[in-house]
Amino acid sequence: MRDADEHTITRAVVDRFADTPDPRLKEIVTSLVRHLHDFVRDVDLTFEEWQAGIAYLTRTGQTCDAHRQEFILLSDVLGVSMLVDAVNHRMPEGTTETTVLGPFYVAAAPERENGADIAGPLEGTPLLVTGSVAAADGRPLAGATVDVWHADEDGAYDVQQLDALGGLAGRARFRTDARGRFHFWTIAPAWYPIPDDGPVGDLLKATGRHPNRPAHMHFMIAAQGFETLITHVFSADSPWLDSDAVFGVKTSLIADFAKHPPGTAPDGRAMERPYRHLTYDFGLKAAKPGRSRSVRDRDPT
Amino acid sequence: MRDADEHTITRAVVDRFADTPDPRLKEIVTSLVRHLHDFVRDVDLTFEEWQAGIAYLTRTGQTCDAHRQEFILLSDVLGVSMLVDAVNHRMPEGTTETTVLGPFYVAAAPERENGADIAGPLEGTPLLVTGSVAAADGRPLAGATVDVWHADEDGAYDVQQLDALGGLAGRARFRTDARGRFHFWTIAPAWYPIPDDGPVGDLLKATGRHPNRPAHMHFMIAAQGFETLITHVFSADSPWLDSDAVFGVKTSLIADFAKHPPGTAPDGRAMERPYRHLTYDFGLKAAKPGRSRSVRDRDPT
Repeated sequence: MRDADEHTITRAVVDRFADTPDPRLKEIVTSLVRHLHDFVRDVDLTFEEWQAGIAYLTRTGQTCDAHRQEFILLSDVLGVSMLVDAVNHRMPEGTTETTVLGPFYVAAAPERENGADIAGPLEGTPLLVTGSVAAADGRPLAGATVDVWHADEDGAYDVQQLDALGGLAGRARFRTDARGRFHFWTIAPAWYPIPDDGPVGDLLKATGRHPNRPAHMHFMIAAQGFETLITHVFSADSPWLDSDAVFGVKTSLIADFAKHPPGTAPDGRAMERPYRHLTYDFGLKAAKPGRSRSVRDRDPT
Repeated sequence: MRDADEHTITRAVVDRFADTPDPRLKEIVTSLVRHLHDFVRDVDLTFEEWQAGIAYLTRTGQTCDAHRQEFILLSDVLGVSMLVDAVNHRMPEGTTETTVLGPFYVAAAPERENGADIAGPLEGTPLLVTGSVAAADGRPLAGATVDVWHADEDGAYDVQQLDALGGLAGRARFRTDARGRFHFWTIAPAWYPIPDDGPVGDLLKATGRHPNRPAHMHFMIAAQGFETLITHVFSADSPWLDSDAVFGVKTSLIADFAKHPPGTAPDGRAMERPYRHLTYDFGLKAAKPGRSRSVRDRDPT
């Protein structure tokens, strides 16, 4: 086709994808073209604005490295990640709600025994985490893998300070026991700004948005025959619960990171300092054939 | 806000941009969020598909370097570049139609005198290019800058083979004379596939699309008081005129790259070999305050 104008070009591009062998890919690319073109027409995008967009996307891609995923962050602050979560997770009774993966997941987290302290060199208020994993009907799930990762007291993840820490910390993979339970020690995570020294930070600054997320602990829980659960548990006394920069807060995911004076902790450990205790029981949704959800052994970068 | 679902999250994200100081940025980002969310809902994007999208965008950004702009290429094959062109260029009578910039523009092209041969080490059929630059009313524009760049006989640009060529070739900047005229020698460009060894090539392969563009010469023409013209002239005997991979062909931009036997060329040069001759007269649109269009002295990367 020749001489496409602003009204005919969308049809011309969609037609060009007519021979896409995979019907799902054809559906996605066709819809993407339609919505992208609608956007350009809606705002009457100028050539300079298009150039700025190209430069922005390029810079976003080039800000990504082995430990930084700026496109996930961009998806997060535009609410796209939570929307993808929402369209895929209409959760049945008895199952835990989901939230964003975030850019700090590491596929190869160290496996640790229940009861381990995963704080490593991180300093802060000790936190005992206890919990359980069950099916929607309450049946405990033994041998489920429980990946956890969280920020430190300054709001930084291990992968943001690998040189200083000398390795991963505040991150591990556990396995539930015969009664579907797990527990470990770490330090209480703080609220934090998402990395805002890159393109996503520029967007937030230019649009008058703060970059902060309420304090939370990430969980990814996998068990044979169940959908892998990707979620956080948020600390009930954290700021930013009502304006999370990535729109991830759900009421059911807010829990007490309860403060305790020195004494004997629930797992029998003698604590000479004040500590906190979070306990949370997770419910997994049975897997359906087809739409599975797993990032295990795959890095999103 | 908490507990956003697939229906409420779009409003929540749009609200979060409410304090954007620049009204145009607010309009663009708000529209982008709406259309992006509509796309996700339309296709019910899965988590795995979202991950594939993140990985694709990341790879596209990381394929860009000083001489390769994969995001422009992606915009081109999705018809976005030509749509941006269309919404910005409703051209008045007497002015030349526009088309895509493409990914091979170099801001710092060498300045050459009229009559120069810019082929450098490129081998192929000699091509004489003659032309003029005028305002819409036919008034010749003296001192206009005429940037040209084109592929070689194998369809490759200089920036794709810098090591082999030892520098730029088939690329220069001229200035029109007192009568608004310019002329130079080079070699006739061939049709070519856009670079298809990267993410854009993967998309074309997966969707059964060919990557080819008809033979053409790029022009960017700038004169004080006029909109900078970005266009090509296509060779009338080239294949792919009806299925340009980037949707760039306009009938008014197709011209004869006329074949001539050995003899005296129109500029007086004695040609012992057959040569071609392209002549094209360009008309520039007067600049309006506000919406200008210029990439001069700015590299899109």
